[in-house]
Amino acid sequence: MNSKQRTAITPTREEDYAQWYQEVIKAADLAENSPVRGCMVIKPWAYAIWERIQSTLDSDFKRKGVQNFYCPLLIPKSFLEKEAKQVEGFATECAVVTHHRLERQEDGQLIPAGELEEPLVIRPTSETIIGEMTSRWVQSYRDLPLKLNQWANVVRWEMRTRLFLRTSEFLWQEGHSVHASSNDAHTTATTMLESYRDLAESVMAMPVTVGQKSLNERFPGAVNTYTIEAMMQDGKALQSGTSHFLGQSFSRAFNIDFLSKEGKQELTWTASWGASTRLIGALIMTHSDDNGLVLPPKLAPYQVVILPSPHKAEKPEDITRYCEELKKTFEALSYDSQPIRVFIDDSDNRPGDKSWNWIKKGVPVRVEVGPKELASNAVYVGRRDKEPRDKESINRESFIQNLPDLLNSIQTALFNNAKNRKKENTHHAASKEDFHALFKEHGSVFVKAYWHDNEANNSIEKALKDEYKITVRCLPLDGDEGPCIFSGKPGKLAVFAKAY
Amino acid sequence: MNSKQRTAITPTREEDYAQWYQEVIKAADLAENSPVRGCMVIKPWAYAIWERIQSTLDSDFKRKGVQNFYCPLLIPKSFLEKEAKQVEGFATECAVVTHHRLERQEDGQLIPAGELEEPLVIRPTSETIIGEMTSRWVQSYRDLPLKLNQWANVVRWEMRTRLFLRTSEFLWQEGHSVHASSNDAHTTATTMLESYRDLAESVMAMPVTVGQKSLNERFPGAVNTYTIEAMMQDGKALQSGTSHFLGQSFSRAFNIDFLSKEGKQELTWTASWGASTRLIGALIMTHSDDNGLVLPPKLAPYQVVILPSPHKAEKPEDITRYCEELKKTFEALSYDSQPIRVFIDDSDNRPGDKSWNWIKKGVPVRVEVGPKELASNAVYVGRRDKEPRDKESINRESFIQNLPDLLNSIQTALFNNAKNRKKENTHHAASKEDFHALFKEHGSVFVKAYWHDNEANNSIEKALKDEYKITVRCLPLDGDEGPCIFSGKPGKLAVFAKAY
Repeated sequence: MNSKQRTAITPTREEDYAQWYQEVIKAADLAENSPVRGCMVIKPWAYAIWERIQSTLDSDFKRKGVQNFYCPLLIPKSFLEKEAKQVEGFATECAVVTHHRLERQEDGQLIPAGELEEPLVIRPTSETIIGEMTSRWVQSYRDLPLKLNQWANVVRWEMRTRLFLRTSEFLWQEGHSVHASSNDAHTTATTMLESYRDLAESVMAMPVTVGQKSLNERFPGAVNTYTIEAMMQDGKALQSGTSHFLGQSFSRAFNIDFLSKEGKQELTWTASWGASTRLIGALIMTHSDDNGLVLPPKLAPYQVVILPSPHKAEKPEDITRYCEELKKTFEALSYDSQPIRVFIDDSDNRPGDKSWNWIKKGVPVRVEVGPKELASNAVYVGRRDKEPRDKESINRESFIQNLPDLLNSIQTALFNNAKNRKKENTHHAASKEDFHALFKEHGSVFVKAYWHDNEANNSIEKALKDEYKITVRCLPLDGDEGPCIFSGKPGKLAVFAKAY
Repeated sequence: MNSKQRTAITPTREEDYAQWYQEVIKAADLAENSPVRGCMVIKPWAYAIWERIQSTLDSDFKRKGVQNFYCPLLIPKSFLEKEAKQVEGFATECAVVTHHRLERQEDGQLIPAGELEEPLVIRPTSETIIGEMTSRWVQSYRDLPLKLNQWANVVRWEMRTRLFLRTSEFLWQEGHSVHASSNDAHTTATTMLESYRDLAESVMAMPVTVGQKSLNERFPGAVNTYTIEAMMQDGKALQSGTSHFLGQSFSRAFNIDFLSKEGKQELTWTASWGASTRLIGALIMTHSDDNGLVLPPKLAPYQVVILPSPHKAEKPEDITRYCEELKKTFEALSYDSQPIRVFIDDSDNRPGDKSWNWIKKGVPVRVEVGPKELASNAVYVGRRDKEPRDKESINRESFIQNLPDLLNSIQTALFNNAKNRKKENTHHAASKEDFHALFKEHGSVFVKAYWHDNEANNSIEKALKDEYKITVRCLPLDGDEGPCIFSGKPGKLAVFAKAY
């Protein structure tokens, strides 16, 4: 870095937002495209972030009575066909397995052989096969509710892909539940959405709008789709987790019925919910800056990195010991009800390079230790939410005492920043003219306006999407009612935005 | 259960071992066949066991410097072709993706459409694609060693499948490492095998023979394959985890080279290692009895179940409170450096049914609580490693005090039983005649004999397999040398057995 305040990431957000996103991923060594079209490789640093997302959601689901299980990757074509909207929604973008071996030809070429009687589709989602299985498992009201979840890979063949945001294969969890009543299924859909909201806001420091999708944007087969929508730094929306009240669509298609307490054979009601590695894309675009990734402490695989500079020390081993003692002391402290996660970077890279490496990877707190710190019983501390050069020497003991508070203040600062940005970039449109003027003036923003969500308005929604790339992101759960700005018919408050 | 000592599982091991295995899976609700050929559904109880296996291995790998990551599910056909033995080993049993959508015909039929330029194979294992990726990542000796692992699903098209033991899709971890020296790669292969041995013996209470595979039985592309082999209750062997020293097979195929410390461009050396949901099959056949699954405490998702019988109580809520207090107290205790895992079964099933349910699921300790226990401040305790009816009333306080020791004694008893069985069913053959006499006399056993492991002996190995279904399971790492009982040539001690 020179005195002209060059940043670690080129281009900056200002210069080219889309390219900046790719460069942050590269600088933090998060992922890269694979030789397989549209599929990414998730590298260790991003995978460690994913593991933290997983453990947060997993323990939350388990607290809510959800059990993990595993259903097959491959789905018979006929299963997809049983639910009309599923097939409509996924048939145009699915990986189809047609053969079960490769056979060498006389010319040496290997070609597909052993054609299957029925083609199999790699799951784009698993409602159909899980519908089939649960129809076997559910017999009586005593078997209900049945709440299952799997951590799995899915494939949806995408033509235009972007790391984390849209890839042909991605990792996710998909929860599936079966209930005796409509109300119970519906409640589960909203309860699971709350797990996503909590992960997003409390752990990822990412404020979200919680709402219901418009008719047009619902999951194939769903009666109602709920969503959390986050605002990226460029003002675009990113759908970050959805839950679905499926009514009896799948119960009917797969005959998931049960003997009620009253002795009647009844159809069940189902729900499903999913969140994916897309959340890492949301994370990147919520907090990162022109020096790379910025991780909220509760999500960071390491919350503190210790960077020893033993080079100029008389006894390098004293620096090493000092750092190891620091690590032990930090790990004995707790933040967010867990031991603080610490890493000593004792690689032989130059101190400046080491420091920049962890800045780009977004670690919340850097603790540098050289001969000066050793002599004065101090640590030289940098916070990721401050300027890279804005570091200070702090007495060892008082730093230790303050560390949990420091992490907490970084977590809070990131959340507040994101909340303020979201607030500043959210506007209210009282009329159609207002609506277009706001998008014209501000480019990408969230615009709130009353919307009549009905099939009659489909053409308006389509025109907004086609002409302006604007979509109804959701109808916030806490929104009020008023006349639709487009049709004048009775409407509900909706959030409109351009989206990823 | 009646006085004739009927067992929960029919048939018993004695009556029909293969069928008994299926019935244990059913009784413990572990898994079932799915409508997709050869693919199983892993149900919550088995998945919870798998999660315990995962967390044990995962933390062990991380301690050994391995980082988790994720590589794509789909592998281009051309990648498989780059390593001759891989294609030979896996081409005959792989799921081939040839199209990327389904299209509706005029007759309403959905047929595969959007043919891919190059077919993709669902990974049967990932050495090839990981070879390609690591060739990009490794540049200099500073990048080495690189130790990666992924938890993933793989597909190997199997014609004859059996739950857990052999399924077309299974879950596993696959570790992959790249090294600057042959020695380092080799050491990593044996170090990771040690993680499997430790999991098997210390956690699963399953004694194993640690050894090297014969030339014939090595992984496609491996220079050396190491294995842990367990003995099932029917005397057959079950390969429970393997690690591979891959030499430079994949480094050469994918050009994984590096600039050495001395400034020379050199080829790397690689290793890989894997263990799968097959381990659950091994677990079932090591400890289960004619009443169902038996879980070693260190592996059990619940180590203790509390079974309240509030029906005959004057104040049922007192029983509930007593049980909840017990749960809290147990959970505050620790065993195997973790809080004890406890579940209260407060379902309204009959007490006898509840108790049998948890016997069949293999939970190590059952604690029954009814009015009598409440009145006498006691618990009525059953151990899974004793007869179901062999229960005793124990004073509450002394039970609590003893609980960690009780779990430990169950763990030890299971391991000792399995060790004794393995010892009793292992014989030594001094000659070829001896060898066949031993198998003739005992049926399925482990037979140790000296073996000249060389291509010259391939035909002997083939004949043993074809005629007697006997294979060389491994050459134990601690085995000595002697003349081959078949050829008289210099040999090493080998273990022969029939195997799953």
